[in-house]
Amino acid sequence: MRGEHAQGEFYVPLATSEGTLVASYNRGMKVLHESGGVKCAVVGDNMQRAPVFIFEDAAQARRFADWIVVNTDQIKAVSEASDPFIRLKHIDYYLASKFAYLRFNYTTGDAAGQNMVGKATFAACNWILQNCDEVEIRRYFLDGNIATDKKASMMNIMRTRGKRVTAEAVIKRDVLLEIMHADTESLYYHSKVASIGTMLAGANNNGCHSANAITAVFMATGQDVANVSESSAALLYGELLENKDLYMSITLPSLIVATCGGGTGLPTQRECLEALDCYGVGKVNKFAEIVAGTVLAGEISLAAAISSLDWVSSHEQMGRNDPVKGKV
Amino acid sequence: MRGEHAQGEFYVPLATSEGTLVASYNRGMKVLHESGGVKCAVVGDNMQRAPVFIFEDAAQARRFADWIVVNTDQIKAVSEASDPFIRLKHIDYYLASKFAYLRFNYTTGDAAGQNMVGKATFAACNWILQNCDEVEIRRYFLDGNIATDKKASMMNIMRTRGKRVTAEAVIKRDVLLEIMHADTESLYYHSKVASIGTMLAGANNNGCHSANAITAVFMATGQDVANVSESSAALLYGELLENKDLYMSITLPSLIVATCGGGTGLPTQRECLEALDCYGVGKVNKFAEIVAGTVLAGEISLAAAISSLDWVSSHEQMGRNDPVKGKV
Amino acid sequence: MRGEHAQGEFYVPLATSEGTLVASYNRGMKVLHESGGVKCAVVGDNMQRAPVFIFEDAAQARRFADWIVVNTDQIKAVSEASDPFIRLKHIDYYLASKFAYLRFNYTTGDAAGQNMVGKATFAACNWILQNCDEVEIRRYFLDGNIATDKKASMMNIMRTRGKRVTAEAVIKRDVLLEIMHADTESLYYHSKVASIGTMLAGANNNGCHSANAITAVFMATGQDVANVSESSAALLYGELLENKDLYMSITLPSLIVATCGGGTGLPTQRECLEALDCYGVGKVNKFAEIVAGTVLAGEISLAAAISSLDWVSSHEQMGRNDPVKGKV
Amino acid sequence: MRGEHAQGEFYVPLATSEGTLVASYNRGMKVLHESGGVKCAVVGDNMQRAPVFIFEDAAQARRFADWIVVNTDQIKAVSEASDPFIRLKHIDYYLASKFAYLRFNYTTGDAAGQNMVGKATFAACNWILQNCDEVEIRRYFLDGNIATDKKASMMNIMRTRGKRVTAEAVIKRDVLLEIMHADTESLYYHSKVASIGTMLAGANNNGCHSANAITAVFMATGQDVANVSESSAALLYGELLENKDLYMSITLPSLIVATCGGGTGLPTQRECLEALDCYGVGKVNKFAEIVAGTVLAGEISLAAAISSLDWVSSHEQMGRNDPVKGKV
Repeated sequence: MRGEHAQGEFYVPLATSEGTLVASYNRGMKVLHESGGVKCAVVGDNMQRAPVFIFEDAAQARRFADWIVVNTDQIKAVSEASDPFIRLKHIDYYLASKFAYLRFNYTTGDAAGQNMVGKATFAACNWILQNCDEVEIRRYFLDGNIATDKKASMMNIMRTRGKRVTAEAVIKRDVLLEIMHADTESLYYHSKVASIGTMLAGANNNGCHSANAITAVFMATGQDVANVSESSAALLYGELLENKDLYMSITLPSLIVATCGGGTGLPTQRECLEALDCYGVGKVNKFAEIVAGTVLAGEISLAAAISSLDWVSSHEQMGRNDPVKGKV
Repeated sequence: MRGEHAQGEFYVPLATSEGTLVASYNRGMKVLHESGGVKCAVVGDNMQRAPVFIFEDAAQARRFADWIVVNTDQIKAVSEASDPFIRLKHIDYYLASKFAYLRFNYTTGDAAGQNMVGKATFAACNWILQNCDEVEIRRYFLDGNIATDKKASMMNIMRTRGKRVTAEAVIKRDVLLEIMHADTESLYYHSKVASIGTMLAGANNNGCHSANAITAVFMATGQDVANVSESSAALLYGELLENKDLYMSITLPSLIVATCGGGTGLPTQRECLEALDCYGVGKVNKFAEIVAGTVLAGEISLAAAISSLDWVSSHEQMGRNDPVKGKV
Repeated sequence: MRGEHAQGEFYVPLATSEGTLVASYNRGMKVLHESGGVKCAVVGDNMQRAPVFIFEDAAQARRFADWIVVNTDQIKAVSEASDPFIRLKHIDYYLASKFAYLRFNYTTGDAAGQNMVGKATFAACNWILQNCDEVEIRRYFLDGNIATDKKASMMNIMRTRGKRVTAEAVIKRDVLLEIMHADTESLYYHSKVASIGTMLAGANNNGCHSANAITAVFMATGQDVANVSESSAALLYGELLENKDLYMSITLPSLIVATCGGGTGLPTQRECLEALDCYGVGKVNKFAEIVAGTVLAGEISLAAAISSLDWVSSHEQMGRNDPVKGKV
Repeated sequence: MRGEHAQGEFYVPLATSEGTLVASYNRGMKVLHESGGVKCAVVGDNMQRAPVFIFEDAAQARRFADWIVVNTDQIKAVSEASDPFIRLKHIDYYLASKFAYLRFNYTTGDAAGQNMVGKATFAACNWILQNCDEVEIRRYFLDGNIATDKKASMMNIMRTRGKRVTAEAVIKRDVLLEIMHADTESLYYHSKVASIGTMLAGANNNGCHSANAITAVFMATGQDVANVSESSAALLYGELLENKDLYMSITLPSLIVATCGGGTGLPTQRECLEALDCYGVGKVNKFAEIVAGTVLAGEISLAAAISSLDWVSSHEQMGRNDPVKGKV
């Protein structure tokens, strides 16, 4: 890996009962390694809580939003007082009907931070309720479904949730041929056809299977696995170079990861993070880069398998047998 | 539970490191129980593999699609010969540019069936490649990203992936007040405001947090947890009755579950399924209903907590402490 | 109308060949009028142009975005120098792969402003190309498809394009019954069922037919009718009050309107704008409110017709006959 | 044009007040013409009406859907009896909560057919209400928002609404250079970057501006211009060939067009259709192809202008001046 934070070689822990999966990621990593490694960068960082305030009419909701803009510094002070590690970056607002949906955007250090931002926003809302004399707040809820926690959404893809991280590599044509028995032209062509398929399907992911890597790493390292819902969103992009080597990148716009807090402190999970030197304070960007690099390895491996048509037969060889149903 | 398949009381296994989560689901289940239980029904069942065929031009892609329609019976015979448990229900096709995306829809008995449908579709594609003399197939890929496996998509929401299952209940007003300290009017109002938030956010789920229940049950029972990506899609709907009791339903359009095959046979996971009498052949619809009922319990519990404003404080009481970061 | 800008009674010009349409809007307006009128408010105002810059890698794209943030004041000065009526409000950026998509948000006075913002952003891009020494810009395009002009998009629904405007009214139950032969309970129930339908369909509009009003007014008043693509997005919301009167609101998040420039100066079109006292400088918010109020009238009328089942039969009575095909 | 129905040269009528627009389409058409023309094919044809039926619970909604499947032939007979030109192709159903949304798919000859399908579905619903003894229908609405008429939706993109039509061409590199001062490599690169922008924006169109051509042709030929809402959806796809010529295709999945009925019979509009030999019975596929070809011409022209950076300056030369605001 040639990331900004993750540099060198890593043995990535994958918790899965799918035998083919580990083999597939191994192959992809080998391709990346032989091609000169994978570049990674965390390009965004936001954790959100999104309350909604309700007014007599739309005009008052807009006046409230204006009031929030004017009072952002004080709201920032109140919310940040709730936790030493939290920073309020900005408050987005979205108006519809007589509702003002606020979306508080924080950084939360090396924790995933959903609970931290809940507390901070709760404090902010209390302050708002007590201090807003601009308009009468009829009602409010601490969550109005635009956070959007544990959900796939355009909001997360656009405005980032957790880490926004990109992994990039130039795949050498001869390496791909040797390891995967697929050429870069086919891989590239598949990515283009699959992107049209993605538009037809209305999917939040034009890659192959980011969820597999993310789930397996999340389970191994004590992440909140329910966040696979939003973390598996992905934007895949490829360019076939003049020499037929293939630039491939994948951007994960809403990867929720932590290197402290939550399940990261459980014994086995902590051990897995430590094996990556990713446990504790100051490690979360490094960890995010490793996840993204792993996802890219899996994309190349599966897309190459599809391109070379040995997809099902590889399942045949390494799959499991089940006493009840036979091969599944 | 008063499902078509799941009837009676069940202790649902949840694998999670979030203390508050189990407590929250317990409360929701208590509300459902005291309100007369939860009705469930599996209303759809489809597992897909979706190859793409490439032609000289769009007119040939359409002629190919017409040929597929004419030859569906033979394709059905070929694909079903690959496995004794698989049935091909219908083949959808989607045309764009010079591509014909086919989406094979199968039932796969009590297995999740992703690998079964891969094999069956591979066999079907081979037959197509050998027998289609209507147009020249320039190229084909076994997957064109419209399946859409392990991805959130409108395709899955509309056309079902795995089980489509609905849980419904009439929440008694006094029960909700007593157990959750929230009234049905607030819960109902929140669901309406949150639905507008969902439209604003472009989310695949207008409920609160289906992913939490689904992930915890999936981990406990040996499901493929990466399928949380699509399984967490949800359509929540509420009606406030004349007597202020509250009808609530949640529809999971793409719940991927199995009671045999994959990780379901692992010792602990099998034990969890057996505790629900959901291990093995003929149990998958019962299991799907239990998952849906659990999701509805969680919706009521969290929405009630949001409505009654004790959300963050309940995290305070039951949350974990972390030596590195303090409360997360 | 009881808007912030539009107050009193207006005869709204509709250019259409659909006889039933005008009759339907008339009925809806009568309902609104008899119920005490419609409140309107413009709650957002943004016109965009969105260039994309291309770099060696994702890390450089992020550094570029940071540089843009630091240099926003200068970019603002450059872009505003291109036109006396334009103001640059803020620049959003969206990072994916090695690309930085910038979205310049302007106000453009009473013009729709697509060309003004094109010029202003072109000037800004030239300044950026000449002055950015932070990273090497490999390439750039003046448009990267996130503007999103003349397209339906979540971007427009969330982040506003043109005017964001809400119309609200409390429909009196007896008025609706008398004029539309429908009760408010049915109308309300339909709006709820239709909203679930909207989620199933993945539509950008949970109302009935905003496009009809918008198109007819746009054609009459010299707007750019191609903007119906994004202008027809809508968020409908209803509340059944204790007395069974019905609060209904509709929010148009991306209504592109002008009261000067473009086709507004053509003779007939100008006359239509003048009849509303909406031609020229300082009138665009008033005009936006009138459009939104008209849309709400149509929503009530069609939803009531659906609720009272006379939908098709009203087409029968007032429709046209066509010599070639008979009734269409 | 080298379509299946439209063959030869056509002068396409565009009703617009944008001077630059006509010039831009002219250039694009010249590029297509010099490159050997544009191939077109109508690959789908569906007009819909979508009622919703409401039951006691989800299980009954499913039983109803099963009953519809069994009784499709009779429903077909009833609905087709309403009009001599209508054919019922198939009924899709979508289940959520206790609702069964049916989507009737018809062909309607050369009319757009929204009113025809309304009548036919109304007749079908009446028959269903009188004959369904399988379950108790609690309630029904003739429209449940999944049609989705005059709305942008994933439903329309996937399942076709109106005509699904593809235009394709191989753009010669030297022709593009000569006429547009842009090379095919840049055009191709822009289409790729713009497609990622489209995913980021959640747009229903990864092309440049299909709405401009569609609106201008619709106004000239008496189409229902409000249908620009769904007709402007588009899927653009490109391939750079070995010799650097560029294959480009655009698929319009939901183009609503008619050559008889509605406004097509008005004098000027009819004249425009007649100039294309597209007025009356048996002409609608030809007309759909011409629209698609025109859209592709505009895509090439605008994308080339963006690629060659003369976009704004061409507006400067040919734009209009407005006495109130100056250049817009």
